[in-house]
Amino acid sequence: MDELEIDAVAEVELDDPVLVEGLPGVGHVGSLAVEHLLEELEADSTLVRRVYSQEFPPQVSVEDGVADLTCAEIHAVTVPDGRDLLLLTGDHQAQTNDGHYVLTDAFLDIAEEFGASEVYALGGVPTGELIEEYAVVGAVSDESLLEELEEVGVEFREDEPAGGIVGVSGLLLGLGGRRGFDGACLMGETSGYLVDPKSARAVLEVLEETLGFDLEYESLDERADEMEEVIGKIQEMEQQQQQQQMDVPTDDDLRYIG
Amino acid sequence: MDELEIDAVAEVELDDPVLVEGLPGVGHVGSLAVEHLLEELEADSTLVRRVYSQEFPPQVSVEDGVADLTCAEIHAVTVPDGRDLLLLTGDHQAQTNDGHYVLTDAFLDIAEEFGASEVYALGGVPTGELIEEYAVVGAVSDESLLEELEEVGVEFREDEPAGGIVGVSGLLLGLGGRRGFDGACLMGETSGYLVDPKSARAVLEVLEETLGFDLEYESLDERADEMEEVIGKIQEMEQQQQQQQMDVPTDDDLRYIG
Amino acid sequence: MDELEIDAVAEVELDDPVLVEGLPGVGHVGSLAVEHLLEELEADSTLVRRVYSQEFPPQVSVEDGVADLTCAEIHAVTVPDGRDLLLLTGDHQAQTNDGHYVLTDAFLDIAEEFGASEVYALGGVPTGELIEEYAVVGAVSDESLLEELEEVGVEFREDEPAGGIVGVSGLLLGLGGRRGFDGACLMGETSGYLVDPKSARAVLEVLEETLGFDLEYESLDERADEMEEVIGKIQEMEQQQQQQQMDVPTDDDLRYIG
Amino acid sequence: MDELEIDAVAEVELDDPVLVEGLPGVGHVGSLAVEHLLEELEADSTLVRRVYSQEFPPQVSVEDGVADLTCAEIHAVTVPDGRDLLLLTGDHQAQTNDGHYVLTDAFLDIAEEFGASEVYALGGVPTGELIEEYAVVGAVSDESLLEELEEVGVEFREDEPAGGIVGVSGLLLGLGGRRGFDGACLMGETSGYLVDPKSARAVLEVLEETLGFDLEYESLDERADEMEEVIGKIQEMEQQQQQQQMDVPTDDDLRYIG
Repeated sequence: MDELEIDAVAEVELDDPVLVEGLPGVGHVGSLAVEHLLEELEADSTLVRRVYSQEFPPQVSVEDGVADLTCAEIHAVTVPDGRDLLLLTGDHQAQTNDGHYVLTDAFLDIAEEFGASEVYALGGVPTGELIEEYAVVGAVSDESLLEELEEVGVEFREDEPAGGIVGVSGLLLGLGGRRGFDGACLMGETSGYLVDPKSARAVLEVLEETLGFDLEYESLDERADEMEEVIGKIQEMEQQQQQQQMDVPTDDDLRYIG
Repeated sequence: MDELEIDAVAEVELDDPVLVEGLPGVGHVGSLAVEHLLEELEADSTLVRRVYSQEFPPQVSVEDGVADLTCAEIHAVTVPDGRDLLLLTGDHQAQTNDGHYVLTDAFLDIAEEFGASEVYALGGVPTGELIEEYAVVGAVSDESLLEELEEVGVEFREDEPAGGIVGVSGLLLGLGGRRGFDGACLMGETSGYLVDPKSARAVLEVLEETLGFDLEYESLDERADEMEEVIGKIQEMEQQQQQQQMDVPTDDDLRYIG
Repeated sequence: MDELEIDAVAEVELDDPVLVEGLPGVGHVGSLAVEHLLEELEADSTLVRRVYSQEFPPQVSVEDGVADLTCAEIHAVTVPDGRDLLLLTGDHQAQTNDGHYVLTDAFLDIAEEFGASEVYALGGVPTGELIEEYAVVGAVSDESLLEELEEVGVEFREDEPAGGIVGVSGLLLGLGGRRGFDGACLMGETSGYLVDPKSARAVLEVLEETLGFDLEYESLDERADEMEEVIGKIQEMEQQQQQQQMDVPTDDDLRYIG
Repeated sequence: MDELEIDAVAEVELDDPVLVEGLPGVGHVGSLAVEHLLEELEADSTLVRRVYSQEFPPQVSVEDGVADLTCAEIHAVTVPDGRDLLLLTGDHQAQTNDGHYVLTDAFLDIAEEFGASEVYALGGVPTGELIEEYAVVGAVSDESLLEELEEVGVEFREDEPAGGIVGVSGLLLGLGGRRGFDGACLMGETSGYLVDPKSARAVLEVLEETLGFDLEYESLDERADEMEEVIGKIQEMEQQQQQQQMDVPTDDDLRYIG
């Protein structure tokens, strides 16, 4: 196997599509969002590429006894009344620094092959506390892209995210911008402790407005309700502990639960 | 030395052989199993390939003062009344992520060279507690392989192993499947704390039925008896501690003992 | 993207320029110094090269919503009454051992391209305690360079810095020396716990004498005053703690604050 | 700079020389031994090769203000009444697994260039306790080499060193053996906590007998006396603590002191 192997599973003609990335990350916001997109637009979508790489962990996933080699998948979606999409999903990020560069370049190559010149990277931005109002924070590859996104409610903040954007999401803007792509990263606010379907919905609602598709949110809301129950139980336990100990619990009491 | 150097120690004509891998891993189940195979079938086996690689640790092992460079070995076995075998053993796994890809590809190259189109990866799956009944959990590279293995008692479970299969065992299915190999991973249940000859026997008994060879288990059972004694002593100590402290010992009291 | 991509942003004719490096490091001394140089000499400076590399972290920085791919920048400065300069800055060091070698070679290539044959690497040397008198410790690529720097107050010590000089600063002397560059590393003494504008000023004052430019220090001194306030507050807190506990606080009470 | 750069500093005609390696390791036994050899045989030795590599840490050492790029050095020694020598020293080991392979191959290339077909790797084997009688434990690349070394007092033990030999010392036997070199590793027993000149002397005394040179040990013995004093003080402190606390100190009370 070479460092990178791309399987051309199918070919689809797309009209000026947009690459939308949702690999695993903070609060699983990006992957929840793109998986929901795939589910809702399933009738119009086709798996077109699988990307295998030595940069992924050396691993197979197993479902009902059948093993699948770790890869990233790109689905083509011909959206009836909106922009065509290329949806990028996968179970893993690259395992090394330069692996992120290698994979991002491969994803951009595929996007170019299908005629895309725009990319949206979806993810979460951790706030350290439970969220009431789900703001969507943005970053763009070029100043000219700010206004249109501000109009649909994306917030651009002076020094946020403070540490920059790391991994494929960041590089899709950075390397993408160098290659002539217009790129935006949409990051839903999320506590950072829990898988967060509500944050994913906030991100998708922005995308609906900019890309012109219509989604239903039933399945995502169900998942959010399940998480609410988990949070409710945690808060109950916290209150009991507080009463018992008069000792404020820390964020460490909350663990990543999915 | 190149990244990979394969010494062709001998050539043997095999008839449709099966590659059986037993590198070190959980409970040493895979390596115990393949080493027992080698011991029992010694009369019919020949060392055919040594694989040296910069992906292995930079190390020699020393026995009676003589140093041997870390490598993996492949023995060819012409089984009288069963399928011919290629047995893969070694003291070490690769030390990096992409090393697993590089080595697995090398092992599959050798398998192809000897005309193999099937591969069995042997290993253990940790349960976290001492085992009474040794189930063998399976994973396959293709759905069509499920039925035959279910018939000989291999269990295929919905979401197991939960984290997938990591390392050469996983990639023999993943990369092997992509290259046209039929692959199965047989994982004996094991506590994960102890070297486990009983789990190795459970895995070998499945292999006997599918590949048609006959093994004696005297030496493996002796090793199992030794481990039983160790376990007995640990449990005795635990009970004494419990009586003394009325404090339940954790799994951490058990260490990897070989 | 290749391992290394150098954007030629502009071309400037320089007369026997000196490469001055200020990448992040101990007390941010080097980066504070070179950024202050850039600020003060802004009218005469031009951004000439951007260096992108897979050796940098896979990351964009974000300012007011606009993302920029991690890179190092080289500005050319035509100093009216002094030596021309090539100023090297950036937000990150390489992430791997060999990355430092790769980037240093790239920086030296660019320096050669502009006709430079001298290099100054600026940095800090940690003393473990707050500094009263800011000495500048030096190291050079060749013995013949000692005298001139001793004359302007640089101290050369028998076994300092004890662990040698690590990273690009060290390699600019080591690799630079091998390629025929005259190289000096100027290290301002600094506690190692705090961003240290005073140490940066001490280093710059040496450079003024050797390279013949004139700087004002207003903005750097303001930053130093802010740090003094921080230090004052820390010392006050320490004294209070000492009175309360009669227990001497350790250096661990001081954290990196910038 | 390439991954590897070898400077040919001088050429010397040697008669069937032996490569003797003393890079840093347990108790600094190997490096103390080879540095003492260099010191004692200085009149007959010439620096012939410097090996620079991206596998070494990205670092310069500084002595009296002058920086030197990390490298390994090979000196040629024409021993009046004994075998000619190639002495390999340096301040650092490789920083990665495959770096050890790369550097060892480079060292063997140079040995071949000077006509060597034998290699001695010198080092220490940690015992975990202070040593009274300094045994020298051996390992060889080929069984035929055992007898001659046993005759001069080298001990070959069934399963020692238990974890094999890691790094360049191990690979000089492993890779060397594959390339046709006769290789031996001589490991002086040492506590593992202290720089150990006595262990280095034990190793050198073996080498004197096999290679036929004569050494004086004055400077090494002085260094040993200094270490004895350090050990004496530590033991005194331990006894005081024991009397005070009736609590046995552990090996952790001893630190690496050089």
